Amino acid sequence: MKVGGVPYRAIFAEGDGTGVRVVDQTVLPHRFETVALETAADAARAIRDMVVRGAPLIGATAAYGVALAMRSDPSDDALAEARATLAATRPTAVNLRRALDGAGSLLLGLPTGERAAAAFGFAARLCEDDVRANRAIGEYGLEVFREIARRAGAGDAAGRELNVMTHCNAGWLATVDWGTATAPVYLAHDRGLRVHVWVRETRPRFQGAGLTAWELAQHGVPHTLVPDGAAGHLLGRGEVDVVIVGTDRTTAAGDVANKVGTYPLALAARDNGVPFYVAVPSTSVDWSIEDGARIPIEERDAEEVTRVRGVDGDGVERWVRVAPEGTRVANYAFDVTPGRLVTGMVTERGVCGAGGLRGLLGG
Amino acid sequence: MKVGGVPYRAIFAEGDGTGVRVVDQTVLPHRFETVALETAADAARAIRDMVVRGAPLIGATAAYGVALAMRSDPSDDALAEARATLAATRPTAVNLRRALDGAGSLLLGLPTGERAAAAFGFAARLCEDDVRANRAIGEYGLEVFREIARRAGAGDAAGRELNVMTHCNAGWLATVDWGTATAPVYLAHDRGLRVHVWVRETRPRFQGAGLTAWELAQHGVPHTLVPDGAAGHLLGRGEVDVVIVGTDRTTAAGDVANKVGTYPLALAARDNGVPFYVAVPSTSVDWSIEDGARIPIEERDAEEVTRVRGVDGDGVERWVRVAPEGTRVANYAFDVTPGRLVTGMVTERGVCGAGGLRGLLGG
Repeated sequence: MKVGGVPYRAIFAEGDGTGVRVVDQTVLPHRFETVALETAADAARAIRDMVVRGAPLIGATAAYGVALAMRSDPSDDALAEARATLAATRPTAVNLRRALDGAGSLLLGLPTGERAAAAFGFAARLCEDDVRANRAIGEYGLEVFREIARRAGAGDAAGRELNVMTHCNAGWLATVDWGTATAPVYLAHDRGLRVHVWVRETRPRFQGAGLTAWELAQHGVPHTLVPDGAAGHLLGRGEVDVVIVGTDRTTAAGDVANKVGTYPLALAARDNGVPFYVAVPSTSVDWSIEDGARIPIEERDAEEVTRVRGVDGDGVERWVRVAPEGTRVANYAFDVTPGRLVTGMVTERGVCGAGGLRGLLGG
Repeated sequence: MKVGGVPYRAIFAEGDGTGVRVVDQTVLPHRFETVALETAADAARAIRDMVVRGAPLIGATAAYGVALAMRSDPSDDALAEARATLAATRPTAVNLRRALDGAGSLLLGLPTGERAAAAFGFAARLCEDDVRANRAIGEYGLEVFREIARRAGAGDAAGRELNVMTHCNAGWLATVDWGTATAPVYLAHDRGLRVHVWVRETRPRFQGAGLTAWELAQHGVPHTLVPDGAAGHLLGRGEVDVVIVGTDRTTAAGDVANKVGTYPLALAARDNGVPFYVAVPSTSVDWSIEDGARIPIEERDAEEVTRVRGVDGDGVERWVRVAPEGTRVANYAFDVTPGRLVTGMVTERGVCGAGGLRGLLGG
């Protein structure tokens, strides 16, 4: 998508295809910068420190991490080490494991001399597949939006905007391009279906305020920022026509791990009869488990909750502490929304209910 | 309650009983300071700028505001002006209107020469009534906690702690003393029922992180701070035995206006079979309405959402912006939890269901 009118991807190759750069998501929305990844350790650090985040983008970055490792040492040992290092970065997004398994299977079958080129090729294909899947999710999601808009009398020039609510950032910054939950939003906007997005700020890391609001502003999509707790009020007052979120891992039975706060949002949507959709690329489905309670939920550092990053009145970036020093904190990064609360899964092959993933995607 | 071992109230008279001081809640948890209120305008400003907040404390501050006005000019005009100024500060807490109506009725029946003393007496009684009501809520709430703890096998020396979740600050800082939702917590702690409190940080103003966590720490009650969105995960994983919150206004039929984010919390409690209690002093019940949709919901400044106050690494207080400049914001301060989601109302006269308020309190 565009930044200041210039098209970007969240991760991209440069030069001869073996240079890798990512958008640095730790400095947005205050600065837009890209950083080079030179080694597998760089890629692992970028994932762990959330320079990149979002399940699809984590997978893409891991694939490039393996390629960078192979460039300097294509041995079995180096491959195993790169995979282990990258796998240890974050536990919840299944795309990470899938990318590493895919790269591993491919490369172990090749002579060492061919591995670097093959690994870069694998990563590039993974990125193209991601873009294509998100684009398809956008088309299917747009059909959903159109139908909801038609029934609500919204979205056309004569009516009000279609009000879409999302959580966290399942935008192009969470993927290679387009985003998952935002793909239908961008397509709607581009094709004249008038949309307005309620952006939940998404504590503790403010990915809604810092990333989604920024993305939407760059693309010119009308949006309003709200604290996470405001979703119930807005849903209760009829201010939301449809909710759509991304996922870090969805089980075969349709339980959805996503950024913490998604599950109460789904409950509030259900309590008010508002449809709740999940944008699910097949790469985010974990076919090995059915029950969402089996998804590992990452616990992150307390300081993500007690300290907030922003810019002061002089534009200087600063961290400030918002809780009493020494306060004990629990910081679960994700929660699990049971499939029973999901109106529809929007995948790259169409839309289905929570129980229909296997039939649709053939997992 | 105690601050550094010294007993305080959130508002208190000093000297001859006509000096009024309040704890400045805009600088907590980083500094503990009290400020003098000299005039009705001071009181109005303190309410509007949230130097004081919490429905019962807003009522008490308004009562003292009227008294301060009467001290300098006990005329009918001055009384009317003070009431109008104070009434215009914040729309949702019904305690404000009740205090102003009560003071008005009393004072209009008196000769001007007696008004100042009577107004200070009224405010002092309102404060004592608040403390007594909260204390009674504490006793009834403690019975509820004991029963839940008994069934869960928690709270005694042999078992685990009873896990209580609350939202925002319905603590002593929201009242004159004891708090509403926290009164049973403090009593439990003092009497050896082992409690642990999940404190939701409560965006956008962080009253959980800044006030409730601070209060509980001062009193030595074990607690853990979490982002608002984490409640669903904790409830889903069995980490919460009981939820108890305060209210800014509860209708005669038991619909509960409270800090935004309460309604999704109630939904998450219900979805997991966890009891959801509301601590309701009778002063917070609005007998004039049944339907919660009729409660006016305050909309506050966008900057409460986009700018965060805290202290930097050098202990300097700073404001930082967390969203892109110019982002549109909606900032609803409250939401309404339908009575159907409330397990019990804990009042100063006992515990009842949402439909039982009139029978119990005789409104």
